[in-house]
Amino acid sequence: MMDLQFQLIKESEKTRARLAKLKTTHGEVETPVFMPVGTQATVKSLTPHELMDLGASIILSNTYHLYLRPGSDLIKEAGGLHGFMNWQRPVLTDSGGYQVFSLGKLRKITEEGVEFRSHLDGSKHFISPEKSIEIQMELGADIAMVFDECAPYPADYEYVKQSKALTTRWAKRCLATHNRPDQALFGIVQGGMFHDLRRESALELIDLDFPGYGIGGLSVGEPKEIMYEVLDELIPVMPKDKPRYLMGVGSPDALIESVIRGVDMFDCVWPTRIARHGTVMTRQGRLTVRDQPFARDFEPIEEGCTCYTCQNFSRAYIRHLLKTKEILGVRLTTIHNIAFLFRLMEELKQAIREERLLEYRQEFYEQYRD
Amino acid sequence: MMDLQFQLIKESEKTRARLAKLKTTHGEVETPVFMPVGTQATVKSLTPHELMDLGASIILSNTYHLYLRPGSDLIKEAGGLHGFMNWQRPVLTDSGGYQVFSLGKLRKITEEGVEFRSHLDGSKHFISPEKSIEIQMELGADIAMVFDECAPYPADYEYVKQSKALTTRWAKRCLATHNRPDQALFGIVQGGMFHDLRRESALELIDLDFPGYGIGGLSVGEPKEIMYEVLDELIPVMPKDKPRYLMGVGSPDALIESVIRGVDMFDCVWPTRIARHGTVMTRQGRLTVRDQPFARDFEPIEEGCTCYTCQNFSRAYIRHLLKTKEILGVRLTTIHNIAFLFRLMEELKQAIREERLLEYRQEFYEQYRD
Repeated sequence: MMDLQFQLIKESEKTRARLAKLKTTHGEVETPVFMPVGTQATVKSLTPHELMDLGASIILSNTYHLYLRPGSDLIKEAGGLHGFMNWQRPVLTDSGGYQVFSLGKLRKITEEGVEFRSHLDGSKHFISPEKSIEIQMELGADIAMVFDECAPYPADYEYVKQSKALTTRWAKRCLATHNRPDQALFGIVQGGMFHDLRRESALELIDLDFPGYGIGGLSVGEPKEIMYEVLDELIPVMPKDKPRYLMGVGSPDALIESVIRGVDMFDCVWPTRIARHGTVMTRQGRLTVRDQPFARDFEPIEEGCTCYTCQNFSRAYIRHLLKTKEILGVRLTTIHNIAFLFRLMEELKQAIREERLLEYRQEFYEQYRD
Repeated sequence: MMDLQFQLIKESEKTRARLAKLKTTHGEVETPVFMPVGTQATVKSLTPHELMDLGASIILSNTYHLYLRPGSDLIKEAGGLHGFMNWQRPVLTDSGGYQVFSLGKLRKITEEGVEFRSHLDGSKHFISPEKSIEIQMELGADIAMVFDECAPYPADYEYVKQSKALTTRWAKRCLATHNRPDQALFGIVQGGMFHDLRRESALELIDLDFPGYGIGGLSVGEPKEIMYEVLDELIPVMPKDKPRYLMGVGSPDALIESVIRGVDMFDCVWPTRIARHGTVMTRQGRLTVRDQPFARDFEPIEEGCTCYTCQNFSRAYIRHLLKTKEILGVRLTTIHNIAFLFRLMEELKQAIREERLLEYRQEFYEQYRD
């Protein structure tokens, strides 16, 4: 397995934050980075060129969805995800684990793997760690993830302990199966909200020497303070010279808090999902531009925002498009929300560079209302 | 009322086709021209910048829909349609007549105007010729259309005769109401499939000296040959120095036949509507790219097409997007179909220039299967 290059550029002195460059087969990614989610081989409503214009350096795609439709063999035939969707920058695929576990009654977990029924047509499938890696090798992302079990919240200690142990055993099987030299495979730290289990999970995975580590099982319903405490305890155990990827986190405050605690990579469907429901992000907090008060508001979504949406269209026009269910409305809110998060990440990087991350956080909270 | 400038560039010697330039408040339009339809102040799924990149020189928007949502007063406040949707090239609005008549049982026609119930919430409304013009003056398009009655097909002679007479009386009332000097008002020739009524309608309207003339009530279900015969008889009656706009026509063969017969302007929802249902246009005819045979077809929609879609994506990827109901799929098919029609119009202009329109038609039909 290829060793992913991860080059630290700067480590903050007052916090655990750091700047780095992640070198993958399809190019370089500056971290900390937010990865937009392209579940079905498309970041909903956007072209790859729009994503590049927005400044996306890496995107995520979902193994479970692509396995069901159109099938990883078809994507392999198309030249992998890069060829299929015409995206030439880095891609990360999740393992399908989280999605399969989220099926609830439709799935059954054994030592061997997970048996589940498709949410589309009820057809029966089985994914083992080996199978997940085979699918991900066909999808051909730059970074693949191990097949893990994500414990729910809340869950009792004994359950999470067993689940964490299973995740480690599966991680070994993933590693044994993976043989694509142009693709890096990340481990995933589990252990729920229990600091000792998180620590054990991290140490067991470090022992397997992955080129990067996901942090799974957070942002699953627990209060944010609990997540931050887990990060406070876990991050010091994790190797400094490997990327740390906090899975499923994308709210502005959680991004800031997690970067301060030493996280390098993030993904989340939330910013693009709320966009499709007519909610946009601003420095002052969320704004449901779809609502009546904006019907005659001819200002842009956010004063001073340089995104395509804010440079060209008013809240009133976007509201009209959303109310009349016009596709352009969803495109414009999606563009703005991604631009908003990318600008936040740029500012966070700048603040690390200038060693003023804590001041930046304070300034941000002075305006922001969740 | 402003006299729209219409400058003939070339008249074909072997056919009635001509090349011209139409000068409007928001710029020049080369004719023959196809106008994409932006019913609700958006050409479905596209940005104004994408439309410009495609080469759209003028678009159409619908008075009936905009009157109901978001209201023409709001659009006036936003700086008219141009300001509201950020489209700085010419716009044409229809009068709402056709949409209102299409409501069937929901509307009642009197000499005064049309009472109808909204298709959205059943609320009661009344549009008279005067009201239609007031709305269109608020919308602020470069070209407005008179409020006409569009007879159905088939309809008997007496009905169409009365309907045609009503349309002429309404045209006079529209003219008397219209007073926006930066907006041109076109008359609309009616008369169903009856050549003498068409002739009378044209002469009555010419008497009112409009700067341009729509041809309404065609492409309403009659065989295409009947439409072509109406055009054959009607066009020689119409003034040479005024633009002729055939309303609601946009299939490739009908565009070619109508340009040959002397039509200058066209609009139609069909090419963009079929795109949204997964059907694309090619030189060989229509292709339902959403269908199974294209699942593993990694070629572009149309070999040699220079549109964004064909330059970047395969039939297999587009099919996947359409099957999974991803917005990008509809965007890509819409772009291709508009690009296809614009290329057709460019080729028709070139063929007129080179006096080889009839040869062009023959070559086109040799490949095209409807």
